[in-house]
Amino acid sequence: MKNVAVLLSGSGAFDGAEINEAVLTLLHISKQGASYQCFAPDTQQTQVINHLKGEEASDKRNVLEESARIARGEIKPLHELNVDEFDALILPGGFGVAKNFCDFAVNGAQMTINEQVLKVGEAFRDAHKPAGYMCIAPVLLPYIYGDGVKVTVGNDADVSSAINEMGGEHIDCDVRDIVVDDKHQLVTTPAYMLAQNIPDAEAGISKLVEKVLYMA
Amino acid sequence: MKNVAVLLSGSGAFDGAEINEAVLTLLHISKQGASYQCFAPDTQQTQVINHLKGEEASDKRNVLEESARIARGEIKPLHELNVDEFDALILPGGFGVAKNFCDFAVNGAQMTINEQVLKVGEAFRDAHKPAGYMCIAPVLLPYIYGDGVKVTVGNDADVSSAINEMGGEHIDCDVRDIVVDDKHQLVTTPAYMLAQNIPDAEAGISKLVEKVLYMA
Repeated sequence: MKNVAVLLSGSGAFDGAEINEAVLTLLHISKQGASYQCFAPDTQQTQVINHLKGEEASDKRNVLEESARIARGEIKPLHELNVDEFDALILPGGFGVAKNFCDFAVNGAQMTINEQVLKVGEAFRDAHKPAGYMCIAPVLLPYIYGDGVKVTVGNDADVSSAINEMGGEHIDCDVRDIVVDDKHQLVTTPAYMLAQNIPDAEAGISKLVEKVLYMA
Repeated sequence: MKNVAVLLSGSGAFDGAEINEAVLTLLHISKQGASYQCFAPDTQQTQVINHLKGEEASDKRNVLEESARIARGEIKPLHELNVDEFDALILPGGFGVAKNFCDFAVNGAQMTINEQVLKVGEAFRDAHKPAGYMCIAPVLLPYIYGDGVKVTVGNDADVSSAINEMGGEHIDCDVRDIVVDDKHQLVTTPAYMLAQNIPDAEAGISKLVEKVLYMA
């Protein structure tokens, strides 16, 4: 049975992992006969957003503890991830990726990546194991894989130019489709960068999971 | 297009709405061609549980604000729910139902229900509109529908005896199946009272949604 490491960046579209994307990722890994283990960094969230009002809240939350809500407690700290135990890596999106996994939300193309996330991304790259990045998560890929990496976040003008500025090659893509970079064994899909409803997101995410497992 | 009111009790299996159940409910309402609106009571959570450690945390959280994480902000306070605007009602489960919608988690068969939740449940009952309750949520049904209501929470001995003690009739059920009470237009499924994985929960939830929409 193929085993997938899933990286979560919190729990909630505006300050953590996009919840629909995370659940649909886990659903389709299971439905396609593979197993998974969720991981998240044991660090404080950059922000806490009141998702009702869309405003920043004053409380402090931990990325691992909040991610555990999606995983029903079955989650491990990211520093325990051993690439040898997994066949593939998948990152759901959400602002947590742009705020907790890197500082793209603030610094755009001048962003830097969380040290543990970088280390894990590089470990899968160096082991030639496939990876799937969805929604905003592909902004991490030029940093991890270097120049010429082909990715999509849908058709957002600002994010796609930032990806190109960082050395990536952005390819426009429909929400229900995927972009595959065979050379780097990478699969990306727009998910909630474009999705207007959950079935839209599911269509692209199920294709991403299928392709990543096929490559593994 | 049929329109479904979905009641959320927070965001996280141990103190709020079970996240997988909530997402799968919304996914299948959309996939089956209906629309939905999420609601939650604007009240403080009874408890906040650290989902990593399984321990009670000291912070205070609001049921509506946390539920908004699942609904990406598209949620309304429960007191604004007007039964005339909807064809059916669905309640995902999670401990939030047993802690925030009623006090079953503490008082078992001697439980009482949150006033707003009771009012909404009774409104759908009185309008003869169908409802689906999953996971632990069927404990609310004897209180709302009265003696003889047929429901399932799977096969949990304690919860099923409490349901029978409150006047309901518990029927054992497989995780991938549903129990239908035609007289009361009620559909129940065990979901995470029994589910060992997300596809198990999805099988029962998709059947519940299909049957509720068929009755509507």
